[in-house]
Amino acid sequence: MIALFTDFGPSGPYVGQLHAVLAREAPGVPVIDLFHDLPPYRVPAAAYLLPAYTREFPVDSIFVCVVDPGVGGPRKPLLVRADHRWYVGPDNGLFGPLTARARDCTVEEILWIPPRLSNSFHGRDLFAPVAARLARGGRPETRPAVPAVPVRPWPADLAEIVYIDRYGNAVTGLRAAAVPAGARLRCGGQPLDRVRTFSDAAPGSGFWYENANGLAEIAVNQGSAAAQFGIGIGEPIDVLLT
Amino acid sequence: MIALFTDFGPSGPYVGQLHAVLAREAPGVPVIDLFHDLPPYRVPAAAYLLPAYTREFPVDSIFVCVVDPGVGGPRKPLLVRADHRWYVGPDNGLFGPLTARARDCTVEEILWIPPRLSNSFHGRDLFAPVAARLARGGRPETRPAVPAVPVRPWPADLAEIVYIDRYGNAVTGLRAAAVPAGARLRCGGQPLDRVRTFSDAAPGSGFWYENANGLAEIAVNQGSAAAQFGIGIGEPIDVLLT
Amino acid sequence: MIALFTDFGPSGPYVGQLHAVLAREAPGVPVIDLFHDLPPYRVPAAAYLLPAYTREFPVDSIFVCVVDPGVGGPRKPLLVRADHRWYVGPDNGLFGPLTARARDCTVEEILWIPPRLSNSFHGRDLFAPVAARLARGGRPETRPAVPAVPVRPWPADLAEIVYIDRYGNAVTGLRAAAVPAGARLRCGGQPLDRVRTFSDAAPGSGFWYENANGLAEIAVNQGSAAAQFGIGIGEPIDVLLT
Repeated sequence: MIALFTDFGPSGPYVGQLHAVLAREAPGVPVIDLFHDLPPYRVPAAAYLLPAYTREFPVDSIFVCVVDPGVGGPRKPLLVRADHRWYVGPDNGLFGPLTARARDCTVEEILWIPPRLSNSFHGRDLFAPVAARLARGGRPETRPAVPAVPVRPWPADLAEIVYIDRYGNAVTGLRAAAVPAGARLRCGGQPLDRVRTFSDAAPGSGFWYENANGLAEIAVNQGSAAAQFGIGIGEPIDVLLT
Repeated sequence: MIALFTDFGPSGPYVGQLHAVLAREAPGVPVIDLFHDLPPYRVPAAAYLLPAYTREFPVDSIFVCVVDPGVGGPRKPLLVRADHRWYVGPDNGLFGPLTARARDCTVEEILWIPPRLSNSFHGRDLFAPVAARLARGGRPETRPAVPAVPVRPWPADLAEIVYIDRYGNAVTGLRAAAVPAGARLRCGGQPLDRVRTFSDAAPGSGFWYENANGLAEIAVNQGSAAAQFGIGIGEPIDVLLT
Repeated sequence: MIALFTDFGPSGPYVGQLHAVLAREAPGVPVIDLFHDLPPYRVPAAAYLLPAYTREFPVDSIFVCVVDPGVGGPRKPLLVRADHRWYVGPDNGLFGPLTARARDCTVEEILWIPPRLSNSFHGRDLFAPVAARLARGGRPETRPAVPAVPVRPWPADLAEIVYIDRYGNAVTGLRAAAVPAGARLRCGGQPLDRVRTFSDAAPGSGFWYENANGLAEIAVNQGSAAAQFGIGIGEPIDVLLT
């Protein structure tokens, strides 16, 4: 299957144009809208969400990843094979945490140039056609690449809010397994204890927990953590050891 | 076909993860995004929308219903067969009006436990796999159940706003057929006459009408009833008899 | 393939009900959500987007077009064949620029009346079933029609903002090819130079460019043109000749 991971927004017209390309060039292949409300332009936020939200997809799934403020400029198009899944997208750091964590990984530059390439919509014109070709069992022309944006300056986990969901839950770039046992998280001045899940907290009270994709998440039972604690994308997290 | 009825929000990542499970476990079965912007956590609002918005689906359609603030707690997972359609979701009252109105109905507790069950995302881990199994002609292990949340305290129709659509139209929990002939509805202090449809009202003027799913809806022709009358989810409705 | 072009909003329940009809009546046909956040009720805005965003679809694609404030009133349902693609929707001007620009075009009134037609949701009850029939190779009963809303008063290109995307980019109703070479566009008091694409402008600075669908678009590199220039749908554009 092909899954889309973008900051395009939910309703169009960018998502639909990707689907139209994929329906035409990879007919019958399921296409999943995994994320379309990634924080616009914020490559690091998306980069730490990517491995968490794609880890449970079947082997050979193909991800079209587009958070691409540099589209039309010199950044290269990449094809990444990580832990037996394909990722297609821009060489701007988006694949940093993914490739750093993968047990098995190759990174290649896509050399194929589509017959018609707009200056601003490589998702439609380049990345989706490459994904369709992979889904059909083909391969674009590539060469080995070293990602231009080094992964080094980025930490193994990102102690920041990287996503706010529709409930106001605040997803962090920290894997829950990387937080020491018993630690509290502080965000927006608010120290928060860990609980197992929502129903273990009183309605209206805040906590952190391991979300269903393995990330530490700050939430309020039946309320909005974002509104209640005044936190947004990029808000730093302090890990408070006991 | 399988249809999704949730408060997950439109753009991700929860909806996409359901689709991924269904594409993998029920390949080729159409999956319809029926509702994803149900009012968060508001079980009664969703409960009165459910029978209205699913009544025209084909026999044997399967609905994955997730408004589930108690996820991870003691509430049971239910499998409901109502008027020859399947409904899967939490035992928190969500199926109350549906089962009260059905001519033909059985309610069962799902006993099957998935190999991997997160604490906070039973839509993905439990309800979607059950729906996929039903779509393939299988059945999960179940036992007869009496819903834990009694339907009794809830009225046959709910005289409240249960949904605001993108135009600002305010859907009520009242079936239009249950409103006495000639009655006006009052909401936000505004008494409103019934008309047949939008084009029968002057642009900018308010009215109520029977919407395309049989519910009484408060609207303004080419305007937003929600903004104009200052009404939101939960706002009470008075039925004014002539 | 069938593509949907509506002002229904992204998340439901209107879009899902269209999909349900299409899944039932045209099984196996890909259905693309092209646009669902067209500006509500604003027929001219949608009318100038339609030819731009559908021009790259394959021959015989079918578009269900619903921006239909007059639904339930006397406006006719139309079937348009333009440049070898099908368009189904209301006779309210929505097809004006499309038919004016088409090299090859016929306009017909749909005479078929569905067995059950709600007063407010012809997208579901009439336009989607007609699209499904076309996709299966059939044809609804029609007769030649002259669109009731004349195209004449509308200009060849519309010098206004017709859409704001999720980044805050402001799409105009002007084809970029129709803007004289070297011309600047002024919008919200702000004169803007033309650049090739986002990465050619400094972060935070505004410009106009030809977007990936051929329209002139006002944007800010890694910022929101709508917020920065205080512009919204309907904002007029001045073309400043050098």
